[in-house]
Amino acid sequence: MCGGAAHGLVLLAGVLRARGVHTVAVEAYGLHVHRDLLTRAGLRTVPLPVDGRGADTGALGDAGAVLLTPAHQFPTGVPLHPERRAAVVDWAHRTGGLILEDDYDGEFRYDRQPVGALQGLGPEHVVYLGTASKSLAPGLRLGWMVLPPSLVGDALDDPASRTPGVLDQLTLAQFLDSGAYDRHVRSARLRYRRRRDALVAALAEHAPDVGVTGIAAGLHAVLQLPPGTEQQVVRAAAWHGLAVYGLSMFRHPHTTSAPRDALVVGYGTPPDHAWTGALDALCRALP
Amino acid sequence: MCGGAAHGLVLLAGVLRARGVHTVAVEAYGLHVHRDLLTRAGLRTVPLPVDGRGADTGALGDAGAVLLTPAHQFPTGVPLHPERRAAVVDWAHRTGGLILEDDYDGEFRYDRQPVGALQGLGPEHVVYLGTASKSLAPGLRLGWMVLPPSLVGDALDDPASRTPGVLDQLTLAQFLDSGAYDRHVRSARLRYRRRRDALVAALAEHAPDVGVTGIAAGLHAVLQLPPGTEQQVVRAAAWHGLAVYGLSMFRHPHTTSAPRDALVVGYGTPPDHAWTGALDALCRALP
Repeated sequence: MCGGAAHGLVLLAGVLRARGVHTVAVEAYGLHVHRDLLTRAGLRTVPLPVDGRGADTGALGDAGAVLLTPAHQFPTGVPLHPERRAAVVDWAHRTGGLILEDDYDGEFRYDRQPVGALQGLGPEHVVYLGTASKSLAPGLRLGWMVLPPSLVGDALDDPASRTPGVLDQLTLAQFLDSGAYDRHVRSARLRYRRRRDALVAALAEHAPDVGVTGIAAGLHAVLQLPPGTEQQVVRAAAWHGLAVYGLSMFRHPHTTSAPRDALVVGYGTPPDHAWTGALDALCRALP
Repeated sequence: MCGGAAHGLVLLAGVLRARGVHTVAVEAYGLHVHRDLLTRAGLRTVPLPVDGRGADTGALGDAGAVLLTPAHQFPTGVPLHPERRAAVVDWAHRTGGLILEDDYDGEFRYDRQPVGALQGLGPEHVVYLGTASKSLAPGLRLGWMVLPPSLVGDALDDPASRTPGVLDQLTLAQFLDSGAYDRHVRSARLRYRRRRDALVAALAEHAPDVGVTGIAAGLHAVLQLPPGTEQQVVRAAAWHGLAVYGLSMFRHPHTTSAPRDALVVGYGTPPDHAWTGALDALCRALP
């Protein structure tokens, strides 16, 4: 158990550094805070291009580890293609590299069979990172790691490993054992799926030219925008009272591919009574 | 708020490293886990001799920071002498060094006016570290820091700062606001004071030659032993079913002064019904 995925990454950064790793490949689009964490822990991050098949795992270069969101790339929303899954596990086998699999919203898959975890393909090379941030609340700081046995000792030995409060851990364990967590997740999944359907329907009606992707899972969608319009749409949305991010917000500073204009729209947060109004505002802000 | 003093130290280590600090002076007797934390974070620790006036703050050398337990040196139990308090604050003024004040059991002072925090003498040079580990429970992982204003931003910017769960924090805040925390601490202080008095009385009766120090505060006492007997007494105590530590357990590996033989006896843990029996066993184990 760790204090969210962020705390797990702090521990893993220490383990990697102790093993002589200097460079971690990350997705060219991803969470700023995760890149920062690795950098502050003394590791260099290099961006892997992200396309319609997820991160380009052929570009790993001399990285000693790679941080991926294979089930639902954050934020572009695509699942990692089976060929790339095989390739990255093969890379780990060949080089001894470590794969950090961030399954940040694993509870929320809608239209298809759950995507298997990469961890199942190479348990001795993959660290699986899960979190209660999406299923319960980010403020709980509850996450977990499934580690290759060879790393468990190193991670636990780290004095910094002792941070999540035991009451929260015991409460979560009881929540899981009782079946109440499963019931909560099923009901939340249905609620989020309805919101997603409403988002897709509203876009089809009011902004039929805007492509929407990344909707098979998770709590956000990516709306493709005409080139050069991203900043202007983000500003228009703010003017309509919406806080949405442009895709450029998640871009690794060393990414060389051409920027893509898109809007990252989270649909988990607004309370039910505000959801229809938020959708209307979004449609008005779109080109 | 941080996840116990350990988490606070992890954050402070990052702040110190970012400011170019390489060496942290620590007390020659102290917590292994705190030294380890600093070492793992890339800092060197050097030991300050500890005597009857606390840590020798004249021996700071080229350290960029110093970790102290001024109110109740851990584990020897002495308070830091007023002259040394003034000296270390003066050192911080002159050199820009940072003082990390670990007030690990500040709630439990018995026979005297509370010792003022070092932080009051130089708020711009001292980080005060408090914890609920002794007043509530270590497993909660709840601690707090009072930082010089110039360090607050650096500490909060660290992505690793986000780990204590918000429910525990809100619960503690409510506990404080309601006055229940104060009532709990007062009643715990009375209980621990009675235990300490029973310990001192039992030693006076059954082992009058064993000096006992560090009893003005806290949840442990230090029993001075004849030279060369420490290991043998620790083993005898274990044979009587007691887990007590020898003072050598807390010694910095680079300490050059002659080792002192002593027993560190915590009296916070045994439940009330087991306390008298534990005292009897302790007296039987002593030389």
